[in-house]
Amino acid sequence: MQAYMKKNRAELLTIKAELERSYEQSKTEGLALNMSRGNPADNQLDLSMKMLDVLDAQTPLKLDTGFDYRSYGGLDGIPEAKQLIAEMLEVKTDNVIVQGNSSLNLMYDSISRSFTHGVLGEMAWCKCDTLKFLCPSPGYDRHFAITEHFGIELITIPMNDDGPDMDMIETLVKEDASIKGIWCVPKYSNPLGITYSDDVVRRFARLQPAAKDFRLYWDNAYAEHHLYSDKQETLLNILEECEIAGNPDMPYIFCSTSKISFAGSGIAAMATSVKNIQDILQKLSIQTIGPDKLNQLRHVKFFGNIETLRQHMCKHADIIRPKFEMVLRILEEELSELGIGEWRTPKGGYFISFDTLPNCAKEVVEKAAIAGLTMTSAGATYPYGKDPEDKNIRIAPSFPNLEDLEKAVNIFALCVKIVSIEKILSMKDK
Amino acid sequence: MQAYMKKNRAELLTIKAELERSYEQSKTEGLALNMSRGNPADNQLDLSMKMLDVLDAQTPLKLDTGFDYRSYGGLDGIPEAKQLIAEMLEVKTDNVIVQGNSSLNLMYDSISRSFTHGVLGEMAWCKCDTLKFLCPSPGYDRHFAITEHFGIELITIPMNDDGPDMDMIETLVKEDASIKGIWCVPKYSNPLGITYSDDVVRRFARLQPAAKDFRLYWDNAYAEHHLYSDKQETLLNILEECEIAGNPDMPYIFCSTSKISFAGSGIAAMATSVKNIQDILQKLSIQTIGPDKLNQLRHVKFFGNIETLRQHMCKHADIIRPKFEMVLRILEEELSELGIGEWRTPKGGYFISFDTLPNCAKEVVEKAAIAGLTMTSAGATYPYGKDPEDKNIRIAPSFPNLEDLEKAVNIFALCVKIVSIEKILSMKDK
Repeated sequence: MQAYMKKNRAELLTIKAELERSYEQSKTEGLALNMSRGNPADNQLDLSMKMLDVLDAQTPLKLDTGFDYRSYGGLDGIPEAKQLIAEMLEVKTDNVIVQGNSSLNLMYDSISRSFTHGVLGEMAWCKCDTLKFLCPSPGYDRHFAITEHFGIELITIPMNDDGPDMDMIETLVKEDASIKGIWCVPKYSNPLGITYSDDVVRRFARLQPAAKDFRLYWDNAYAEHHLYSDKQETLLNILEECEIAGNPDMPYIFCSTSKISFAGSGIAAMATSVKNIQDILQKLSIQTIGPDKLNQLRHVKFFGNIETLRQHMCKHADIIRPKFEMVLRILEEELSELGIGEWRTPKGGYFISFDTLPNCAKEVVEKAAIAGLTMTSAGATYPYGKDPEDKNIRIAPSFPNLEDLEKAVNIFALCVKIVSIEKILSMKDK
Repeated sequence: MQAYMKKNRAELLTIKAELERSYEQSKTEGLALNMSRGNPADNQLDLSMKMLDVLDAQTPLKLDTGFDYRSYGGLDGIPEAKQLIAEMLEVKTDNVIVQGNSSLNLMYDSISRSFTHGVLGEMAWCKCDTLKFLCPSPGYDRHFAITEHFGIELITIPMNDDGPDMDMIETLVKEDASIKGIWCVPKYSNPLGITYSDDVVRRFARLQPAAKDFRLYWDNAYAEHHLYSDKQETLLNILEECEIAGNPDMPYIFCSTSKISFAGSGIAAMATSVKNIQDILQKLSIQTIGPDKLNQLRHVKFFGNIETLRQHMCKHADIIRPKFEMVLRILEEELSELGIGEWRTPKGGYFISFDTLPNCAKEVVEKAAIAGLTMTSAGATYPYGKDPEDKNIRIAPSFPNLEDLEKAVNIFALCVKIVSIEKILSMKDK
């Protein structure tokens, strides 16, 4: 095969005609395929079904100390759940708050609390004239949406293979006190699948932000979500590095078990300095009496400790790995020699990030939708949903079964080819 | 017995000496009694233990439609839970959002959302110069704390036997556009135990607030929490009445199953107009992907429908009723003829509201604490924790067992007597 760019107009038209026949054929099949969100598949959810058995009507839920898992209280989470999360994030239990079912909610609440009441005594953001947030992109649309919702200006930071562009970040935060934070998915990032290098993490820890209330929103969503147990990536401990660097209060670490146990019924947690924890708990005590402790206990009883949790993650990997491998194989077979797309091979996480030729992503996603394949909206991985080059598409292969996934990726590849040829033809016309 | 006020100084000193001997005796017993919070007792929590059996590893949790209770989504709650709550609040399912474990959290989030983003297109409260909230008092300290936390000025509204002083409310909200809402516990209120009369509810519905974004924070926390199944009070449907009165968007109704199932692991809900629901869901979609649907399903499977839920509430009443009756009997026996305290006899809810002589409540609570009895802080039932007459004390009899409760109420009565005599003596001195 030859790169499309090198082909002449007649050759491209011939190829296009054939591709369009396949595409029309797909459309007649009435498909309803979905590669849009990082949803676990049924059989991944099945892995945790026994969690529903660990508490039953006979379980003693009141301790001799008087502590009752069923009642009110326990604002920062039950000690056993704090222990499990602390092991997962390699921090101390004093640095952990365990809450409800959604880490996104914890992030939203952190932004909202900063907006209404400020951070560690600093001015409430709602009283600031200008607010800015750094958004390494491509990144996670729901992160960007929270800060956009609060009228915070989003600044795109380019991503390198080892993390965000640290030169740019260092300069920006040092000069501009209106920059209040940065969204990071430091391990198996969404959507690139990269892990921040030790150098990048250390440069984060050593930032000298003009804003005292600048925070790293360190969403370690995929800490344990490797695809290959023998090729796991490692991430430096940001809390430790920040302590060493004299910035102990800078990181807000978030995580959840949404993709470990049940996507809608996991437990979510936050880890940060004791000083931040105290500040947050004081405000949180106005918001709620405490989280669902029974669900925290369910998780502790089911997972036991970090070792058994990690064994559980190998089962997830066994289910997801073949899906990633299939997507990558088909992309390789269908597109690698055509010069119309680039992608990375992640070692973990939930996504494959695909770059089309410039100005093709939207059309590819629209074309796929017409054939019954839902993709993440093009542009979603950039602030304000606007990809400046209109080329990034997030592929989420976790939810469909292998059979559906094969169809889906083939349709995707087909759409990439057709749209690319159209783009190349229109360029040749000019 | 004779009222203390009618006794002379010598008589009072004699009584006081005897009371103080009893008090000193109590102090030596090393008691640790608690009548401070509306916590359900162990055996009330035991009533719902079988809820832990309704879901197990074999339960089919993915429907034929593709809907999976375990996965993400379902922002407004699962349809069956919306149905159950709709029956409880006598509204339509379209008017209901079911969320996580805490209605307090829903109230906080509603205030916070209004503060950051405004209500139905009105200006965000954080941009308003002055914000005020009406606080019928005695009322619920955690309500007042939320609005105080946001710097909203709290205005005390006196309570009558049939609800808050509506004359005052009507005048205030009509004249002052900075009044954005009112905290109400309309049935078996906290702490008075009264239920708003039909007239009061209709006057609420017909309010003509200057602020378009004025909302009734209608915390129907005790809707089903009667003490006597044959003497239940009824509350007019505020949503219907507001529709009739042309104020369809005015009420935000809140409720939860915290005191029906598990205090920390119930489900909480909000009911309001469809227009408000849409406004809220749009903003909520930025905050979270969805609530814990498995816990909602647990509730639906365990309670079945509103009739079986109401049967369940009779079991709660059977446990709580003797506690209320014991408190009321001891207060009657110990204090009724002494002219040093007043209280109501509630037909539901979790509290007995006790009024001492003016300027005695704080001392009574302090004295009780020294003898090992924790009461709700005096003043807590008023905005800013300041009871202008220092006389209201909230008695929460639900948590202790009958034996402890008997000791606790006797100590309480003892403290009321001693402090009252001291107060009367100091008045006689003047």
